[in-house]
Amino acid sequence: MKAYQDMNQEELKTLHQELLKQYQAMKDLHLQLNMARGKPDFSQIQLSMPMLDTINSHYDFSNQKDYCNYGILDGINEAKQFFANMLMTTSEHIIVYGNSSLTIMFDQISRGYTHGYLGNTPWCRLDKIKFLCPVPGYDRHFAITEHFGFEMIPIPMDENGPDMDLVEKYVQEDETVKGIWCVPQYSNPSGITYSDKVVDRFAHLKPAAKDFRIFWDNAYVVHHLYADKQSHVKDILKACEDAGNPDMVFEFCSTSKVTFPGAGVAAMATSLNNKKDSLKHMSIQSIGHDKLNQLRHAQYFHNVESLTQHMEKQADVLKPKFEMVIDIFNRELADLKIGKWTKPLGGYFITFEALEDCAKNIVQKCKEAGVILTNAGATFPYGHDPHDSIIRIAPSYPPLDELKQATELFVLCVKLVSIEKLLEN
Amino acid sequence: MKAYQDMNQEELKTLHQELLKQYQAMKDLHLQLNMARGKPDFSQIQLSMPMLDTINSHYDFSNQKDYCNYGILDGINEAKQFFANMLMTTSEHIIVYGNSSLTIMFDQISRGYTHGYLGNTPWCRLDKIKFLCPVPGYDRHFAITEHFGFEMIPIPMDENGPDMDLVEKYVQEDETVKGIWCVPQYSNPSGITYSDKVVDRFAHLKPAAKDFRIFWDNAYVVHHLYADKQSHVKDILKACEDAGNPDMVFEFCSTSKVTFPGAGVAAMATSLNNKKDSLKHMSIQSIGHDKLNQLRHAQYFHNVESLTQHMEKQADVLKPKFEMVIDIFNRELADLKIGKWTKPLGGYFITFEALEDCAKNIVQKCKEAGVILTNAGATFPYGHDPHDSIIRIAPSYPPLDELKQATELFVLCVKLVSIEKLLEN
Repeated sequence: MKAYQDMNQEELKTLHQELLKQYQAMKDLHLQLNMARGKPDFSQIQLSMPMLDTINSHYDFSNQKDYCNYGILDGINEAKQFFANMLMTTSEHIIVYGNSSLTIMFDQISRGYTHGYLGNTPWCRLDKIKFLCPVPGYDRHFAITEHFGFEMIPIPMDENGPDMDLVEKYVQEDETVKGIWCVPQYSNPSGITYSDKVVDRFAHLKPAAKDFRIFWDNAYVVHHLYADKQSHVKDILKACEDAGNPDMVFEFCSTSKVTFPGAGVAAMATSLNNKKDSLKHMSIQSIGHDKLNQLRHAQYFHNVESLTQHMEKQADVLKPKFEMVIDIFNRELADLKIGKWTKPLGGYFITFEALEDCAKNIVQKCKEAGVILTNAGATFPYGHDPHDSIIRIAPSYPPLDELKQATELFVLCVKLVSIEKLLEN
Repeated sequence: MKAYQDMNQEELKTLHQELLKQYQAMKDLHLQLNMARGKPDFSQIQLSMPMLDTINSHYDFSNQKDYCNYGILDGINEAKQFFANMLMTTSEHIIVYGNSSLTIMFDQISRGYTHGYLGNTPWCRLDKIKFLCPVPGYDRHFAITEHFGFEMIPIPMDENGPDMDLVEKYVQEDETVKGIWCVPQYSNPSGITYSDKVVDRFAHLKPAAKDFRIFWDNAYVVHHLYADKQSHVKDILKACEDAGNPDMVFEFCSTSKVTFPGAGVAAMATSLNNKKDSLKHMSIQSIGHDKLNQLRHAQYFHNVESLTQHMEKQADVLKPKFEMVIDIFNRELADLKIGKWTKPLGGYFITFEALEDCAKNIVQKCKEAGVILTNAGATFPYGHDPHDSIIRIAPSYPPLDELKQATELFVLCVKLVSIEKLLEN
């Protein structure tokens, strides 16, 4: 097909009329579909149902009675080992928490604000706090830092990770810069994995602020789509340790998209100093997290292979969805020069880059025809995408047939809005 | 027996020599016993094992698929109803959280500190925050307010609850007083239940601070020792609503001492305004708590009777322990006038009031012979008991035979330390 920008006004107008008819026909279907959030669908969740049987009334607790009582604030050993394997670190670095890594991140930020890290001044006593936000990024990260009133500075990303020249400049020259949000593997939403060189540059930062921390949300560390094509981000804890910056990173992960979103287990990996500092605060906050759910997970994933096999089953559900969306994009949009999209090897999202100033209108047009997408701009701090071009596609939740309809509507809206944009010029 | 204070020096000295021999004999047993914390023992925990079977791989989720995914921030309806029944309120007032009411309390305090309630100034922006602390009280409450640097003001309690004249004076005259910690039923550690009159005086407070809150930790609301002798604290939410103070209270409870400490479920009950305010904050903090564990509880306690019956079984384990301790106190100490103790109808503690300036020494002497008690002073803010006389006895955790030994050692230490005190005078 001819690229839209190579068409003349007449051709564009004719095509627009044709597409409008198709759009009206889609509208008449009264769709009610949702591609907004990175939620697993129920068939993925069903894969984990046998885990619920591991701890039942016949379970022999005779050597684990203390797992049923108060205490063990940093988590049971089996769960620490599970997360250490997942994050390719050692269990001494791990604290296992409750059901949500988001809650751990909030809590770490809140602790920096109310009490400060390792004896540093609590952020609530400082006039100005800034956080670096690689974009596009995860809206819930940005919501936390906005909630605490921190100034967020967008940092562009490419296929290797954040623009490290810019990161170094901010972190090393401005002591009000206290943190950076990262999703280093199968990034939300671009799907890219930080290169080893980027990780090393992170590790070798010389922050102006003693309490600068990297918030390393390794949410998709085992969430590969392909057995034979995988990305693995380098171990940041080790890299920071080797670079003489052992306390600079808090790494997070969870089983929310491994077992049950809501009934999973979450963990933080960090230096021994940071761990001790966190536990001191946590000892005021909790008498221990849900160790039976930790045990449930540790029993079900009794070795590394069992987790790998489980994640392969998850990929079997997810992969056809990702591939279908990308196939439709390829078929419908490949030659039109009105958008680009990522082909991720893992994670939960495809990022679509529309023509400038088109993202909001595309999302709005989809909504009017019954398909909810993530808000345009949501992947930027304050919801502000300076080019209004990035749209996050979350293919995981709808069943395949609904996803097909939603994607077809999406490409139709991309075409319509792009033509309208081109006609404006 | 003759009261010690009626003995002459000679008699006391002779008795002291005799008791020292007994103490040495106890020491030679090399006991290692712990009566420090209000932990259920394993036989209590075993009562809840069948709950683990309610949600297994055969459970029919077809109408509850969303319980397995992200979302439902305020908890599943069944769990809200469970806690509404427990707290004698309605489910619209309830938010169901994760595994720990202590964590909810910490979080509410932290929210007051970082963001403020209902639009009021965050406490971190104010020079001075004070909290009232009825004494003796719960050390973990005091640890939270100390952690945030609030000044804690001890408020004496009697058998009806806190000294309300003093509470009214502080709350109504001092706008830096932002909260009060209460354990209103089977109080930790005195075991008393606030009278209706005390509850009504709380409800009718006219606080100087708009953001004054009652932190109503109803931890022992269903923890009766006797079916036929029970205390029930009046519903504070309703009382506050009736008094025109609907937003003045946060009420907390959990199943930590109903099912599994650590793997239970916790809840807050509060006004609709407060609930909305909390949920707004929580929406940044979490995508929802562990709804499968909420469901586990709601399935197991499918009606009010099932909970009552379960708590009767808990009482069957606890009651003999409480009665044994009190029997030994009666037998060994009744006529000696060297201590008083409570005979609680519920909860987890017996409070022992020794002669002035004796508590620390008694706890120390017990420790030297291998029995760990709660630190003397722990039930007061900053660990400071002005009379050094209150000791919290936690009979729940040791098995009966060990509890007997520990209690016998305790009364021996009470006798020894009291004589030493009397000999000083």
